[in-house]
Amino acid sequence: MSNTFGRVLRLTTFGESHGEAIGGVLDGLPAGVEIPFEEINRQLQRRRPGQSRITTARKEEDKVKFLSGILEGKSLGTPIAFIIENTNIRSADYTHLKNAYRPSHADFTYEKKYGLRDWRGGGRASARETTARIVGGTLAKSLIPEVQITAYVYAVGPLHLNKIDFNPNPEVIDSNPVRTSDPEMAKAFEQLILETKKKGDTVGGQIICVVKNIPPGWGEPVFDKLHARLASAMMSIPAVKAFEYGSGFKGSEMFGSQHNDIFNEDFTTKTNFSGGIQGGISNGMPVYFRVGFKPVSTLLQPQQSINRQGEIIQLKGKGRHDPCVVPRAVPIVEAMTALVLADMFLLQKINQP
Amino acid sequence: MSNTFGRVLRLTTFGESHGEAIGGVLDGLPAGVEIPFEEINRQLQRRRPGQSRITTARKEEDKVKFLSGILEGKSLGTPIAFIIENTNIRSADYTHLKNAYRPSHADFTYEKKYGLRDWRGGGRASARETTARIVGGTLAKSLIPEVQITAYVYAVGPLHLNKIDFNPNPEVIDSNPVRTSDPEMAKAFEQLILETKKKGDTVGGQIICVVKNIPPGWGEPVFDKLHARLASAMMSIPAVKAFEYGSGFKGSEMFGSQHNDIFNEDFTTKTNFSGGIQGGISNGMPVYFRVGFKPVSTLLQPQQSINRQGEIIQLKGKGRHDPCVVPRAVPIVEAMTALVLADMFLLQKINQP
Amino acid sequence: MSNTFGRVLRLTTFGESHGEAIGGVLDGLPAGVEIPFEEINRQLQRRRPGQSRITTARKEEDKVKFLSGILEGKSLGTPIAFIIENTNIRSADYTHLKNAYRPSHADFTYEKKYGLRDWRGGGRASARETTARIVGGTLAKSLIPEVQITAYVYAVGPLHLNKIDFNPNPEVIDSNPVRTSDPEMAKAFEQLILETKKKGDTVGGQIICVVKNIPPGWGEPVFDKLHARLASAMMSIPAVKAFEYGSGFKGSEMFGSQHNDIFNEDFTTKTNFSGGIQGGISNGMPVYFRVGFKPVSTLLQPQQSINRQGEIIQLKGKGRHDPCVVPRAVPIVEAMTALVLADMFLLQKINQP
Amino acid sequence: MSNTFGRVLRLTTFGESHGEAIGGVLDGLPAGVEIPFEEINRQLQRRRPGQSRITTARKEEDKVKFLSGILEGKSLGTPIAFIIENTNIRSADYTHLKNAYRPSHADFTYEKKYGLRDWRGGGRASARETTARIVGGTLAKSLIPEVQITAYVYAVGPLHLNKIDFNPNPEVIDSNPVRTSDPEMAKAFEQLILETKKKGDTVGGQIICVVKNIPPGWGEPVFDKLHARLASAMMSIPAVKAFEYGSGFKGSEMFGSQHNDIFNEDFTTKTNFSGGIQGGISNGMPVYFRVGFKPVSTLLQPQQSINRQGEIIQLKGKGRHDPCVVPRAVPIVEAMTALVLADMFLLQKINQP
Repeated sequence: MSNTFGRVLRLTTFGESHGEAIGGVLDGLPAGVEIPFEEINRQLQRRRPGQSRITTARKEEDKVKFLSGILEGKSLGTPIAFIIENTNIRSADYTHLKNAYRPSHADFTYEKKYGLRDWRGGGRASARETTARIVGGTLAKSLIPEVQITAYVYAVGPLHLNKIDFNPNPEVIDSNPVRTSDPEMAKAFEQLILETKKKGDTVGGQIICVVKNIPPGWGEPVFDKLHARLASAMMSIPAVKAFEYGSGFKGSEMFGSQHNDIFNEDFTTKTNFSGGIQGGISNGMPVYFRVGFKPVSTLLQPQQSINRQGEIIQLKGKGRHDPCVVPRAVPIVEAMTALVLADMFLLQKINQP
Repeated sequence: MSNTFGRVLRLTTFGESHGEAIGGVLDGLPAGVEIPFEEINRQLQRRRPGQSRITTARKEEDKVKFLSGILEGKSLGTPIAFIIENTNIRSADYTHLKNAYRPSHADFTYEKKYGLRDWRGGGRASARETTARIVGGTLAKSLIPEVQITAYVYAVGPLHLNKIDFNPNPEVIDSNPVRTSDPEMAKAFEQLILETKKKGDTVGGQIICVVKNIPPGWGEPVFDKLHARLASAMMSIPAVKAFEYGSGFKGSEMFGSQHNDIFNEDFTTKTNFSGGIQGGISNGMPVYFRVGFKPVSTLLQPQQSINRQGEIIQLKGKGRHDPCVVPRAVPIVEAMTALVLADMFLLQKINQP
Repeated sequence: MSNTFGRVLRLTTFGESHGEAIGGVLDGLPAGVEIPFEEINRQLQRRRPGQSRITTARKEEDKVKFLSGILEGKSLGTPIAFIIENTNIRSADYTHLKNAYRPSHADFTYEKKYGLRDWRGGGRASARETTARIVGGTLAKSLIPEVQITAYVYAVGPLHLNKIDFNPNPEVIDSNPVRTSDPEMAKAFEQLILETKKKGDTVGGQIICVVKNIPPGWGEPVFDKLHARLASAMMSIPAVKAFEYGSGFKGSEMFGSQHNDIFNEDFTTKTNFSGGIQGGISNGMPVYFRVGFKPVSTLLQPQQSINRQGEIIQLKGKGRHDPCVVPRAVPIVEAMTALVLADMFLLQKINQP
Repeated sequence: MSNTFGRVLRLTTFGESHGEAIGGVLDGLPAGVEIPFEEINRQLQRRRPGQSRITTARKEEDKVKFLSGILEGKSLGTPIAFIIENTNIRSADYTHLKNAYRPSHADFTYEKKYGLRDWRGGGRASARETTARIVGGTLAKSLIPEVQITAYVYAVGPLHLNKIDFNPNPEVIDSNPVRTSDPEMAKAFEQLILETKKKGDTVGGQIICVVKNIPPGWGEPVFDKLHARLASAMMSIPAVKAFEYGSGFKGSEMFGSQHNDIFNEDFTTKTNFSGGIQGGISNGMPVYFRVGFKPVSTLLQPQQSINRQGEIIQLKGKGRHDPCVVPRAVPIVEAMTALVLADMFLLQKINQP
């Protein structure tokens, strides 16, 4: 059950990093939806490793193959299954980990939970699992074409934009390898990532996502509040440590007289500290939220670790890893957002006469 | 479906603030569990309004009545239903809201979603709904007695403790009306809340929760990662805007070489930036997380608002409201944490031979 | 989870026979639905014991009290909770069962499953639990007013109507205490039940349910086929042993050339062996199905049984029990049918553009 | 959601008959389970078309390919995905159906539900979908090796065994192409099927399944009673019209004094009208149930039908179809039974201290 996301639009994902394939099954997409094949490929390319010098050199072709649920380019209303085969696998890079637990990795916890683990390439805990989310999320997005979902890198390590960009431009974002909305800061971000990479180190970062054109009424209190679903979606992405929407933690420092969003006569609000959500339901204003990612745990510098026998060992990351995940995580954040919103859209159809 | 929380241990809540009763049904609690009647009452008292001069003057008796699932003080394995009757209701306080939408409230969004709303006392969007979570969470807690869950107020508005207290003392926390772990800061917090109240204003705040004695292996990747479930639980609490665990947003500013938690020989770690969770599964170290609450939207000072016809009106909060929610939210955070953990505990039983 | 029924319209029930109350929570009923208070009471009266000389003499007032989800007679879109208090309880009638297991009852299995059981009045396994289904089902029915659901007794013990009545008349059905659609057979059925009662024995029976005006398109293959949902609903009713729809077991004896339903030009079919369902989806023809109930296990004559220690004992049923459940099960079958159909109706809304 | 079966052990299936592949994802199988590759192939062979002269001549290789969740022959605790590629497809056989609805088929209802349908080989409504259930069910079976699940053909059209075989011998069953437990009747059944086939007709049938060695305590009242789950599972299999367990419809004709199962001193019962289930929970006695299948709708003789425009047409089945489904349905019944039982086994682990 833990590998299925969604209430009525449900994505089940499967696959280990070095297994046969990564894939998913999207159940609940209504019939007659035009399948956005090109857009799916475009989004897979945005997530793909090996895009630029700031991402891992690992090459994955990441070509999706659809197995079911589609006829003549349209959804049938039946489950859409798809796979992305794992090519360019170098499991030999990981044999030194068969008996070792990397610090701040899932090696130790998977083994404690399951009694065994797939040590090759991180197994199920590898971020490669998110390719299935890209496919599922882009399919979901096609249900709600009028909604605009735009994510961008807000911070890399200690560097960040000097303010939230509430009108991010997708073209600007994709014009720089870091995927930020400010071309100036893009250079600084890139510089920091490259320096970090040179040291064999990694660095964290933050992504902001802005969503426009959500009509009022989406979100299902009390437990499936729109922001609770978004938080659940974001926190399921590997390396995510933090989520806030609207005013977020900053809002917790404020007074009600500052924080309340006063209505205009057209029911929009003058400010948007609410982040487009009140009582767990969209109010028609833009929804925005911030997601914090930790630095990648696999370093290409030696570090102390431990083996199954409890012996302290020295470990040096092999394999091909990103110095910073946020550039490639931008489309993942968008995909998970689309899954949440399309699901809430369908549920709200039930409420309408 | 949106009023049920949990996978195999499931709490369904119901009730509007000024309806007959608030209540819940806890399904999936194994049979033979001693029902902690006294502890439930104690926790309800902690959440109850009217406890001190910094909470609302509204008096609610908040006496829980169990309807099913219990025989001779023990759980039967069947659903445990319970209600808390709504007494001391003053719906007349809300008649001015029948036709008006308060800023940053759920009035407008509930009406857009459902076409109608219960305008009395906030209806389903009232935080009074959380009384049912206290009962359900305290029942859940009795399944995992060895786990220690301790929440406390970390910040009130712009004031905050100077560091996270990783060993909070429950007695100290309950010895001050703000429920913080630092008696010195308790006074400053209280002072700020009183000043805020005097102005008819409200103020936000933050709660930190520290959980000890979780064994390794709890949490269900990839979508029910332990922190994803915790985030989902916390974001479902009224007024919550932000969640982070372990290093959180701060961790996104760090480098991997700083952030990785190096193992000791006993598989504990020297640092705990991971917040006790790796790959979505507990690792045996303490789990800790931070929750940000916005300032309460209902002010007892005049503010501009709007009515159903789109006319700008002046509104002054009546009713009895808290100037700051965090003192009363401490037991709610603990209850929701217990629901998540007991659920993950039961799921992990499935994995064991 | 096992006490919740439905996908998007979900009824959670709770309560033991001799506990404080029986009740339920219906989540997912859209807002704005007129609550059919009178109809709910009427249906409760149909299910109520003590209606006639062929039902148990036990008197239960069975007055429902709504706790939430309703304002000014309309649904709010929030969960509707309700309780029926257990009055007229005579637990003393059951003290002889504290240590004994009745044959063909749930006494032994509940104790094996849960380690303990509520021995008073059958506890959770009592058919009294179905009062909550009556309330939930009647609420669900109000979502689909155009659909006609009519159940009636088809057989009592070895006696049965000489053919299925595809146009059962609700007034005729309620004009006889057995609730059958044939006034002649009603007398024979009643006679058999009275004779059975006189002997302290019990007798089984069958109910047929005919549903008209279901539009084509309801049902969710492959696992939530309309008939699979109906079967699941019926088999959850106490004492049910068998379910068939359309041609049923008889159809398994036929040849395709006889069994296929040939289309008319208006897409209705000349015959209806399909029972209104093809491939798990309604086709617009009437849906009909048959449900078999075993004889009640509690006899008012002595029978051999066993106690917890494995000693053979003699048992004579005390308490107040029905000699035949089917007359009172008619509204339960209708209620469960309504829950299934309203759920499928809501799910089909999702498929429509 | 409708393509996922199970509570904590969940099989999601996908695929259309003439699409790329049929497949499934099994989520919730605990880690460390030895994958029964050979047994899976054996069961697929039992279901495969083209086995004998009484099944369709269509050849499907039905070779399963596992994509995830397995390492070194053992389950990882992560989702196990698998596909069976669709080979030997002759979609041209179906072009005459693009615009026509076959009688008693899902053609009309799928189109009404979804607005479009895959007309090639029955699409999602094809029984080919059940290959995925064979794989999932055989995997599930490996969790509960001590449980013996044996299904066999009880009836073909009007012919049936003269009594239920409560000790069916798997070797005998597989020694005849009809898969019945009585070698004498096997010949009569085969004869009838061959005659039916010669006429271009089809015939229905019944399967009985006997399950031994289920410990007491499996099944989750009130809605997931063991027999309710079994009914739901069986009714989801294509062509199934009827389900009964234990005494079934026959039991509804009996009196309580006949029907009650009297205990022996070891808590077994002298009779087993209960079918091994009381109050929805297994009691340790064998569970048995009967499933009725309608005759296949596709005839190889001309019959009247209709096209999308409502014009009456003559249709003659092309394609390769079974004259009787029950021989090939035997392993499907067993597989679905295994899925239910393994799920209930896991849920019962939660109840144990």
